[in-house]
Amino acid sequence: MKKEWFYRHKLLLTSLLIVVVGVGLLASCGDKSDEAAAPESSGATTVSGDAAAIAEARGLTPDDILAAVKTYTPSGMYDEYVMFASGGHSGQVYVVGLPSMRVIKKIAVFTPEPWQGYGYGAQDSMEILAEGNVEGSDREITWGDTHHPALSETNGDYDGEFLFINDKANGRVAVISLKDFETKQIVKNPIALGDHGGTMATPNTEWIIEGGQYGSPLGWEYASIEDYEADYRGMITFWKFDRESGRILEDQSFAIELPPYWQDVCDSGKLDSEGWVFCNSFNTEMATGGVEDGNPPFEAGASQQDMDYLHIFNLDKAVEVAAAGKTMDVKGFPVIPLDTAIEEGLLYFAPEPKSPHGVDVSPDGQFVTVSGKLDPHVSVYSFDKIQDTIAAGNFEFDQYGVPILNFDDVLEAQIEVGLGPLHTQYDDKGYAYTSLFLEPAVARWTLGGDFSDLNDEEDWTLVQKTPVQYNVGHIAAAEGDTVSPDGKYLVSLNKWAIDRFLNVGPLLPQNLQLLDISEPGTTMPVIYDLPLPDGEPHYAQIIKADKLDPWEVYPEIGWNPRTGEVDENATQIGEERIVRDGNNVEIWMTAVRSHFTPERVEIKQGDKVTWHITNVERAYDATHGFALPLYNINLSIEPGETVTFEFEATEDGVFSYYCTEFCSALHLEMTGYLLVEPGE
Amino acid sequence: MKKEWFYRHKLLLTSLLIVVVGVGLLASCGDKSDEAAAPESSGATTVSGDAAAIAEARGLTPDDILAAVKTYTPSGMYDEYVMFASGGHSGQVYVVGLPSMRVIKKIAVFTPEPWQGYGYGAQDSMEILAEGNVEGSDREITWGDTHHPALSETNGDYDGEFLFINDKANGRVAVISLKDFETKQIVKNPIALGDHGGTMATPNTEWIIEGGQYGSPLGWEYASIEDYEADYRGMITFWKFDRESGRILEDQSFAIELPPYWQDVCDSGKLDSEGWVFCNSFNTEMATGGVEDGNPPFEAGASQQDMDYLHIFNLDKAVEVAAAGKTMDVKGFPVIPLDTAIEEGLLYFAPEPKSPHGVDVSPDGQFVTVSGKLDPHVSVYSFDKIQDTIAAGNFEFDQYGVPILNFDDVLEAQIEVGLGPLHTQYDDKGYAYTSLFLEPAVARWTLGGDFSDLNDEEDWTLVQKTPVQYNVGHIAAAEGDTVSPDGKYLVSLNKWAIDRFLNVGPLLPQNLQLLDISEPGTTMPVIYDLPLPDGEPHYAQIIKADKLDPWEVYPEIGWNPRTGEVDENATQIGEERIVRDGNNVEIWMTAVRSHFTPERVEIKQGDKVTWHITNVERAYDATHGFALPLYNINLSIEPGETVTFEFEATEDGVFSYYCTEFCSALHLEMTGYLLVEPGE
Repeated sequence: MKKEWFYRHKLLLTSLLIVVVGVGLLASCGDKSDEAAAPESSGATTVSGDAAAIAEARGLTPDDILAAVKTYTPSGMYDEYVMFASGGHSGQVYVVGLPSMRVIKKIAVFTPEPWQGYGYGAQDSMEILAEGNVEGSDREITWGDTHHPALSETNGDYDGEFLFINDKANGRVAVISLKDFETKQIVKNPIALGDHGGTMATPNTEWIIEGGQYGSPLGWEYASIEDYEADYRGMITFWKFDRESGRILEDQSFAIELPPYWQDVCDSGKLDSEGWVFCNSFNTEMATGGVEDGNPPFEAGASQQDMDYLHIFNLDKAVEVAAAGKTMDVKGFPVIPLDTAIEEGLLYFAPEPKSPHGVDVSPDGQFVTVSGKLDPHVSVYSFDKIQDTIAAGNFEFDQYGVPILNFDDVLEAQIEVGLGPLHTQYDDKGYAYTSLFLEPAVARWTLGGDFSDLNDEEDWTLVQKTPVQYNVGHIAAAEGDTVSPDGKYLVSLNKWAIDRFLNVGPLLPQNLQLLDISEPGTTMPVIYDLPLPDGEPHYAQIIKADKLDPWEVYPEIGWNPRTGEVDENATQIGEERIVRDGNNVEIWMTAVRSHFTPERVEIKQGDKVTWHITNVERAYDATHGFALPLYNINLSIEPGETVTFEFEATEDGVFSYYCTEFCSALHLEMTGYLLVEPGE
Repeated sequence: MKKEWFYRHKLLLTSLLIVVVGVGLLASCGDKSDEAAAPESSGATTVSGDAAAIAEARGLTPDDILAAVKTYTPSGMYDEYVMFASGGHSGQVYVVGLPSMRVIKKIAVFTPEPWQGYGYGAQDSMEILAEGNVEGSDREITWGDTHHPALSETNGDYDGEFLFINDKANGRVAVISLKDFETKQIVKNPIALGDHGGTMATPNTEWIIEGGQYGSPLGWEYASIEDYEADYRGMITFWKFDRESGRILEDQSFAIELPPYWQDVCDSGKLDSEGWVFCNSFNTEMATGGVEDGNPPFEAGASQQDMDYLHIFNLDKAVEVAAAGKTMDVKGFPVIPLDTAIEEGLLYFAPEPKSPHGVDVSPDGQFVTVSGKLDPHVSVYSFDKIQDTIAAGNFEFDQYGVPILNFDDVLEAQIEVGLGPLHTQYDDKGYAYTSLFLEPAVARWTLGGDFSDLNDEEDWTLVQKTPVQYNVGHIAAAEGDTVSPDGKYLVSLNKWAIDRFLNVGPLLPQNLQLLDISEPGTTMPVIYDLPLPDGEPHYAQIIKADKLDPWEVYPEIGWNPRTGEVDENATQIGEERIVRDGNNVEIWMTAVRSHFTPERVEIKQGDKVTWHITNVERAYDATHGFALPLYNINLSIEPGETVTFEFEATEDGVFSYYCTEFCSALHLEMTGYLLVEPGE
């Protein structure tokens, strides 16, 4: 029977999906008239003088010239905003300046990266990467699937101090310091191999949220897929963050056991709703796949019901319950059992339209926007109504006993925005913006409530849609997840690029499009296309640049970026030395334009080598690299930094170490010889 | 005595270098007036309408607006040129569109990269990376220091078929196909751990040049540094390239033993000089460092003499000599001994000014420009004069017996261009361009000979300098290494960025500046700054975009990108299966929007798993990823591709595999369960 269902529906289903996607693509593929069709603004832009002929020769329209003037950022002029974008399955984070849309930094997080000397010998980075391995396993994990970056917040506003990001593939969370834009910590979730609803920060960054994704027994212990409903579970984890040390405190963190629905994106409450947390879910059908046996594939099996469940957490109360020890132990980690969560009033459900991928709390904390990607509406929930409904206590229950709030009781508004709505951002003019994967487009619509007076349009109404190229997932607006968004810019994180750029072979870059959202009403043009040739830039946050205050050089010579203090092996000029103790050799080296001291290191095969290098420079940008052939060592030693690496001299021979950052006219001469005399 | 020398000179030397660099930086640091000082062109650019107020608010000058119009490339408009830039110590290659200066692809070469599924399980990539390890060593090398990309050529013109790049750190060369922009082969040089003068292609890509760098015993066998002159050597390797198979043929390649000077950049002769090869060298002083023992550091010791040696190779004759078997065997590789090279007339020296980092053959093959970075001139040699001088046979000899041509006999011209000249490129108007590291600037000067009539200026004369920010190493002009350069654009590959971009912590991006060189005479403005947050982009080549003809999707379903044919494990829809043979499990899977078939894979701990996945899509950009948690697997399976990976199921439990490329609205549902039942 099942098998028959599958064969009847399989081809149809596949075709349908491809057609739907195809229609979306065709609608705007290679067609610039869509943008041109956007209402013209008052004074048409023209250019004169030398530029006029060039503009004509290059085929630039007045809108193009206007966009050029809005985005072009000449040499030495600084960008106004900084976007932190996940690098998707690159495992890294990208830092992009707006409006120029230039990538100004890549931050190595889950994947070793030689430019930054991350995972190529430098002890601090090796230790951070090793933190991300699974306890008790000797498998090393050397990549990640970064999804949702979260800037640290103070009173619900980005404060520019820290950035957090999750690894969906292996269930991990990383902490990055924005003093030096380096990864400081990776925590492996002990109870789940994957995640998705992370990371999000609470309004004062006390907690970093890591919601789950695919159902699995807690701790991913083996259990038959036939026992899915009984043995598999979902989860959400709350990591305690300590701002002082700049670290997640694993021993003060906890999780909550959830039904084995697939939890998706989360958001933290703020202002009105501070202390509460909201997560989407899908596959509340609890489909278990098996297309090969005639079951509907997950894409169909997990999309049968019209409603999934918005998960509503009382975080403040959950913290109390965890602190009171009402937890079970899963792989050494405290988990509030589902029954306890229900009993203590930590968890409620509200129906949410079909397979959502977005839950977004408005700047005042009052509205929660959900986009069910198989429903053309956004659904806006009222936090007050949620509270009233919880207080009224008139629930239905899911099969695990979780109280379900009545949809109509908690709904504030539904707005038909278009096909495949995914994610919503907010601005300073009472507008919300929702990405439409299937059209593909970004929709602008009006909020009601306290936002009603900020614009001239009717509340809860679609105002305008701008086509984007192609298949937008998340969007990010300037300061768009804070209590006071800035408007101005919105970036559409598109999943397909197709014909937007020159053909560079079967694997295409992503396309991040910048939209100018500064004007109210119906004008919201795409003003820049940024190809990003790396993993899917899943989500981003955009901060005002003047909120960032990074170091130019490390505060003191001998700085250890991991400990945040001067390293015990910091070496000043004149203190360089090589010390042998049996077959242990320890080297204290300095680097300065343009030589290493010492320049000769003579050891014996089999020696165990510990090597410290201090970059004694105080000049901005005077970074030195250090490469050691065959031993697979490459360091990046920024001004003031001390780096340590270790290796066993298994290979004999002559090895030239050298500086990999072109540091002066005599950079090529910044080298030395490691001589490894053969053993007996 | 030596020690005294050092202590007397050390501080002075360091200060001097820092001051010299500092002066260069201060000269243009944060100062936009330099650009403004460039002569104004005829009609000053103005902008009107909506853009006028925006330009004023953003502080854009008429020159800025002109630059914006020259570079801004609206959505869906294609770039005219494609630059292939080395990614330096990232180990990768960057593909940049001009004039927009957007990075449209990154090609993983020496460093594993999860987006491309390169080195994260996919068998073909694992094998290519393994080719780059040292034979007989169990050390894996997982990064490189890419330096000089070389496009394949036909009759001295880029043909858009292949790209080659070297790894300076470990002495390796990679071959990239421009059909799919993927790395196809890595060859490890058997006789040297490092290189620098690579890669360059001969005019019909018969040979790929890999010149050496730091002196070392051949095969890097241990020898005391005290015996440097006797036991250490330089080298140049010629790799035979077979266009048909798209592979270097290691067994038809050879090297030439050289004196232990440090060989540097090379260039291939062309037209007049086809069949000859030219390389710089430095440290002809044969300094061996040891600053810690009171010796002058390498930066000083290798810079004492006023002249180093331009190496001049008769490649055609060397090929004959190698084919005749007049070689010695070093680690299984044929090497023409130095004495044989001298005897057979394969090698000549010409004096070249101090510590050069650039040897560049003019488009007609007649002139060879050398920049000694510690000399303010460029020195231009005449190929005809070199030939005449060789024929005359009136040589001096270096201590190894290599014939030295008289400097004045082979010199055509010397032009004073400024401080720290490094590298020269050519255009279509009879100009040459030389980077000046210390000023820092790009100098334009005129060629003589057949180029004399192409411009109005006097031959062999400095025309103009444009300041760049900061410390330019190599430069790249459009089609600048071919027999017919295009002019138009030149990119300055700057090593320091300092204040050009927002502060992003102590490790700064590189800065690649685009110069408009289309107008003759004294106008040559910087029109775009591209931050590149990755390893040093050492060198680049720029090809006309219409010469590239990559695949949009792989030619047939089941394509193996390494073999270039349909894989024997290609799987069509309906052919999916799991086959067990003892504890060997083999899986044939398909991927299509948006499901994997099968969706459940049930195995036992200890099983040895071989897993094939075929992406059966034919749509452009319909790539699917495949992530397997904890097992550190991530694949990128482009439309039509078949990928195989293998692992031993050491970890039991429940693992959700999923697609890492956001491929449809139901992408999140593109998942499945690997269930590993615990062993006994």
